[in-house]
Amino acid sequence: MMQTPLLLTSFVKRAEQFFPDKLIISRTAENTIHRIPYRDFAKRSRKLADALTKLGMKHGTKVGSFGWNHHRHLEAYFGVPCTGAVLHMINIRLSPEHIAYVINHAEDEILLVDDNLFPHLSQLAPMLKTVKHYVIMGDSTEIPETKLENVHSYEALIEAASDDFEFPEDLDENTPAGMCYTSATTGNPKGVVYTHRGLVLHSYALGLADAMGMRERDVIMPIVPMFHANAWGMPFAAVFFGTTQVLPGPGFNPALILDLIEQEKVTLTAGVPTIWLAVLKELEKNPRDIASLRAVVSGGSASPKGLIRTFEEKYRIPFIVGYGLTETTPLVSLSVFTSKMDNLTMDERVDIRSLQGLTMPGLEVQIINEKGEVPWDGKTMGELIVRGPWIASEYYKDERTVNAFKDGWFYTGDIAVMTGDGYLKLTDRTADLIKSGGEWISSVDLENALMTHEAVFEAAVVAVPHEKWLERPLACVVLHEGQTADDEMKKQLLTYLENQFAKWWVPDDVVFLDEIPKTSVGKFLKRALRDQLTERLEEV
Amino acid sequence: MMQTPLLLTSFVKRAEQFFPDKLIISRTAENTIHRIPYRDFAKRSRKLADALTKLGMKHGTKVGSFGWNHHRHLEAYFGVPCTGAVLHMINIRLSPEHIAYVINHAEDEILLVDDNLFPHLSQLAPMLKTVKHYVIMGDSTEIPETKLENVHSYEALIEAASDDFEFPEDLDENTPAGMCYTSATTGNPKGVVYTHRGLVLHSYALGLADAMGMRERDVIMPIVPMFHANAWGMPFAAVFFGTTQVLPGPGFNPALILDLIEQEKVTLTAGVPTIWLAVLKELEKNPRDIASLRAVVSGGSASPKGLIRTFEEKYRIPFIVGYGLTETTPLVSLSVFTSKMDNLTMDERVDIRSLQGLTMPGLEVQIINEKGEVPWDGKTMGELIVRGPWIASEYYKDERTVNAFKDGWFYTGDIAVMTGDGYLKLTDRTADLIKSGGEWISSVDLENALMTHEAVFEAAVVAVPHEKWLERPLACVVLHEGQTADDEMKKQLLTYLENQFAKWWVPDDVVFLDEIPKTSVGKFLKRALRDQLTERLEEV
Repeated sequence: MMQTPLLLTSFVKRAEQFFPDKLIISRTAENTIHRIPYRDFAKRSRKLADALTKLGMKHGTKVGSFGWNHHRHLEAYFGVPCTGAVLHMINIRLSPEHIAYVINHAEDEILLVDDNLFPHLSQLAPMLKTVKHYVIMGDSTEIPETKLENVHSYEALIEAASDDFEFPEDLDENTPAGMCYTSATTGNPKGVVYTHRGLVLHSYALGLADAMGMRERDVIMPIVPMFHANAWGMPFAAVFFGTTQVLPGPGFNPALILDLIEQEKVTLTAGVPTIWLAVLKELEKNPRDIASLRAVVSGGSASPKGLIRTFEEKYRIPFIVGYGLTETTPLVSLSVFTSKMDNLTMDERVDIRSLQGLTMPGLEVQIINEKGEVPWDGKTMGELIVRGPWIASEYYKDERTVNAFKDGWFYTGDIAVMTGDGYLKLTDRTADLIKSGGEWISSVDLENALMTHEAVFEAAVVAVPHEKWLERPLACVVLHEGQTADDEMKKQLLTYLENQFAKWWVPDDVVFLDEIPKTSVGKFLKRALRDQLTERLEEV
Repeated sequence: MMQTPLLLTSFVKRAEQFFPDKLIISRTAENTIHRIPYRDFAKRSRKLADALTKLGMKHGTKVGSFGWNHHRHLEAYFGVPCTGAVLHMINIRLSPEHIAYVINHAEDEILLVDDNLFPHLSQLAPMLKTVKHYVIMGDSTEIPETKLENVHSYEALIEAASDDFEFPEDLDENTPAGMCYTSATTGNPKGVVYTHRGLVLHSYALGLADAMGMRERDVIMPIVPMFHANAWGMPFAAVFFGTTQVLPGPGFNPALILDLIEQEKVTLTAGVPTIWLAVLKELEKNPRDIASLRAVVSGGSASPKGLIRTFEEKYRIPFIVGYGLTETTPLVSLSVFTSKMDNLTMDERVDIRSLQGLTMPGLEVQIINEKGEVPWDGKTMGELIVRGPWIASEYYKDERTVNAFKDGWFYTGDIAVMTGDGYLKLTDRTADLIKSGGEWISSVDLENALMTHEAVFEAAVVAVPHEKWLERPLACVVLHEGQTADDEMKKQLLTYLENQFAKWWVPDDVVFLDEIPKTSVGKFLKRALRDQLTERLEEV
């Protein structure tokens, strides 16, 4: 067989050749939507490569991006790696210190920054040790007033660049193409490097009929940010398949998401459960026609069953839960149905959809405890480990590699069980597990149960120290508007759990909060919650 | 990213883990159908590996298979390559000399032979120089009477073998896994080696929603033989996705094919147009319920539009034309529709379905003539060249490599045009092109037009020598039963063509035949036809 390398370059070529008129619908500011055909996208990606090369980008140069989901970010997704350089997608929601850390640690030499984020980033400039050029991604060719030197306008660079630039076709497929950093429980974020090979294989997986089935006739809209785990790989796969893509830009909200779905006839969209909860709320208030959707993908944290049920039952839209991490590119599994599930009741459907689902073809997973691999019984918990060609093999220049990458497997730090049908079910993070009297209690199971209660908007269950049992679960609950946080409600919720769980699983108490603290990507920040509760308990 | 090799081994593991109860429905003889769950398939594949290893199979050993489509052949598809050995799928329809040639040329050491084909093969044994063992694939553990030594029963070997055998997981993904030989216009067949990497990537392509969309809930039935271009890769992909597969065994016929579709609720089937013509004939005579079919794939030679229309219009079953060659694993392209074709008339649908279609994601094609790449205008002809990770890079130990593999491209020998939408349309084989007065005439276009005439069953158009124009087209026609082959009919057919083509394209004459000679895989054998006609012309 030919040794044709698996390169992102082939995606650009394919989109340009076969789907030149298909559109990238890109919102860059309020009331500004661009409609860019793939023909122009390919030209502009080459021009970007030409412009950045003139600024000094070489094979292996790290180019940081600091922006929302829009066509310029997409051009960088290809224009940078297709030359052999590396796009470092910076999580704009990190703390200023961490943003400076990841830019310095990756040694970014050029930063592509959204115009509306530039004021924020430029304040960090004095801390940045390797950055030589700032390129402002905005609709204007003007440069904002700034004391920084070497600030360029993206559009001015594109105007001046040549689209004769040719991407090399002889790159090694293991050449790094992208980087993301993932937050750590303690310490600085950890870097993950994606190769061309990994991203190409991941794109094939997204196109499988048994996975997301992404295809030319889809209109996809990744709500998940392009700075977060490659926007789950969707922008890459969309270019490969000639799929129309809607990139919702900065400052989006539930109303805007619904408007875009309705106007652009979006067929497939993806984001965190928090987004879908908010979208449903808006939809109930101001109905839209969302019948174009063939599926909603939800991941990043557990999706409450009520949320799943509303989409599946009321709107008749498949609500697919996915699982993955920054280290896994990210797609590991999806809660798709197999043929034996054709005649499920709605309750059973919702149960299966709420699982993390079936492992993608090409990956291997195991759940292991101190005795080795656990049985597929839906009960025995263990740590989930993963391997495969789109799984990271290390943290970039980071000693913490040794804790997470062992014997060719990535240790996810997630506690899971495997159902008899081979569906993954996350029960906890290793760090969040509650060990009561030597037995594990799944905080996620308790949270999911609480979130099916009609009064509950959000719930997190955390371990609190206990003299006798060492740890006991405590429920933190945010109620829906109009509900009363009193002892009556507390009792109601605990009784609700008693009917579903063994007695020793039921939390000792319920604390009502206004909000659950979340990470920059919308996951419950249980460490902060525990700290907050500990303070509160100490105050008492 | 992890350097996890792309290996067929992972397919077996996946089927066994996630889809142990899904079935391989295997017909091994008249009235004998086995229903083997993937759990047993995986065990039996490992046992086969164990048994063959005991017979001397090592890394790189060539093991020939000489059989129809059934579960034992499928076990060999994995049991042999997953150990690092190579399965040589021998085309049982080759001439005895060519069969002996390919076995000697590949240096097969073990032959797996269907019980009902063994008498045929054993006659060739004296010519075989490298074969040390014969293994009879049949339902019995008895060995047929034979003078040959080292003849084993497949089932007896499996019985005695251990399923503790473990496939190595550290094979290089570029390790050869399979071999097929393709007939040459002159001389001996040419060998093509498939690697694990090539077959894995090809399997991903088959699963793409925009390609065949093969998935777990499909029930596939490859009619195309497992000794012909990997049965178009379907058995491999089916194991990867946990797809139910129906393997129709020896001596199948249109009635049997239809019975299996009806009984097993086949959703996807694939074969040459000749098969589908015969299947339609049988279906008209004895209707069956074939509503389970979601698509029929047709390839190997051009599909007449009447055939496509009957499936699409009368039976409402998508009839997808594919293109590929032994050298391309084989899938290169499929006549699937893109979103802009949603509102086609039936005539337009049939027109597009009759094309060879859209290039698979991951491959590149070009059509070149003496001026370089031809424009995508649907008119300008040139030779089709292909490259990509599942395209052969050479003929196995064969000097003819230099003619077909140049500058990193495979020269297919097919003449094609590209439509404005990027759909391939084959117009001829380089060897079959008609060059009349310096201009090319597409024999395939004329054949396709003739085959839309209600009186015509099959038609081939070939070049015959001409004093003035050097070559002129001659039509060879097989009429439907009940039609009269006379001058009136001849005139009718030529007028039919005159209404559709430039005058100089219309053949000078029509010759009525009882049958068009075909290759072992059902393609028109135009060389034989030309010889036959030359003889006939000389006789006159």
